[in-house]
Amino acid sequence: MQTQLEKTNDATEKEIFVKMILDAWNAQNERVDKFLAEVSDDELKTEIATGKNSGVYLAGHLAAVNDNLFEILGIGENLYPELKEVFLGNPENKEKETVSIDELKKYWGEINAELSKKFSELSPAEWFEKHASVSAEDFAKEPHRNRLNVLLSRTIHQSYHLGQLNILKK
Amino acid sequence: MQTQLEKTNDATEKEIFVKMILDAWNAQNERVDKFLAEVSDDELKTEIATGKNSGVYLAGHLAAVNDNLFEILGIGENLYPELKEVFLGNPENKEKETVSIDELKKYWGEINAELSKKFSELSPAEWFEKHASVSAEDFAKEPHRNRLNVLLSRTIHQSYHLGQLNILKK
Repeated sequence: MQTQLEKTNDATEKEIFVKMILDAWNAQNERVDKFLAEVSDDELKTEIATGKNSGVYLAGHLAAVNDNLFEILGIGENLYPELKEVFLGNPENKEKETVSIDELKKYWGEINAELSKKFSELSPAEWFEKHASVSAEDFAKEPHRNRLNVLLSRTIHQSYHLGQLNILKK
Repeated sequence: MQTQLEKTNDATEKEIFVKMILDAWNAQNERVDKFLAEVSDDELKTEIATGKNSGVYLAGHLAAVNDNLFEILGIGENLYPELKEVFLGNPENKEKETVSIDELKKYWGEINAELSKKFSELSPAEWFEKHASVSAEDFAKEPHRNRLNVLLSRTIHQSYHLGQLNILKK
């Protein structure tokens, strides 16, 4: 009869931890998928509160943040680098539609499909290597600043805005 | 000269994982602390959108979820078990004030101070033991269902509602 602890040690610790974060990441992305499939265009165009961002901007912001992961994790190039300026570098411009809702939904799906593919090619050990925004010197002192930690912070960030987006759905 | 990977292996892997999740957890709680310190009572009493929960209910909900961690993680007893029925077991009752804003803020601080104390007593290995809502049998097959994974899911959940709460602040 094995104790809990011995049993845990059967699986690689890194594998368990990577699964924990990837499961959380995938669950959040699926909740955004579901939201985007169910929300109407009119609902999505609504501001989450008077004078605040619209759902379209927040959805674009989430797509831009996901697209940026290729670069930050060092696993490829952004698929839609134009999203960065519109949804990360600048506040919402409500006078001008820059990307249509249909385009946004398409980009969201494509970015996430490509991320999933790249993620499946990373070994557990590679998830614990440093991400692109930390120097080798800093990483030596702070080994928690790894690729997986970026995904953790993005998962939490996505949940923050999903909480706001879900307000729009009747 | 060490490679990144060798350097990472110097620190106990489990310690790094625990630090990643605890850092994220603490950062979220500090953001809620900041929100509660800055928001006015009138803002907090406002609904996040017409017909949706008020800020008071969401703050109470977050306090109740944190208080429940003692039980789920098997590290003590809930400090304010009465929160459970009001903010977890039932939807908001807007006709009746059950807990005052001052009480809620006090509870929030006390619950988190006690959680921090208990967390500091857990070893990295203990974080990877099963939580109270999973059977030993299931845990043997699914070793990711550990205490740390509960804290991860609660961190993401907290961020979801913080996104909504921040809408209320002028």
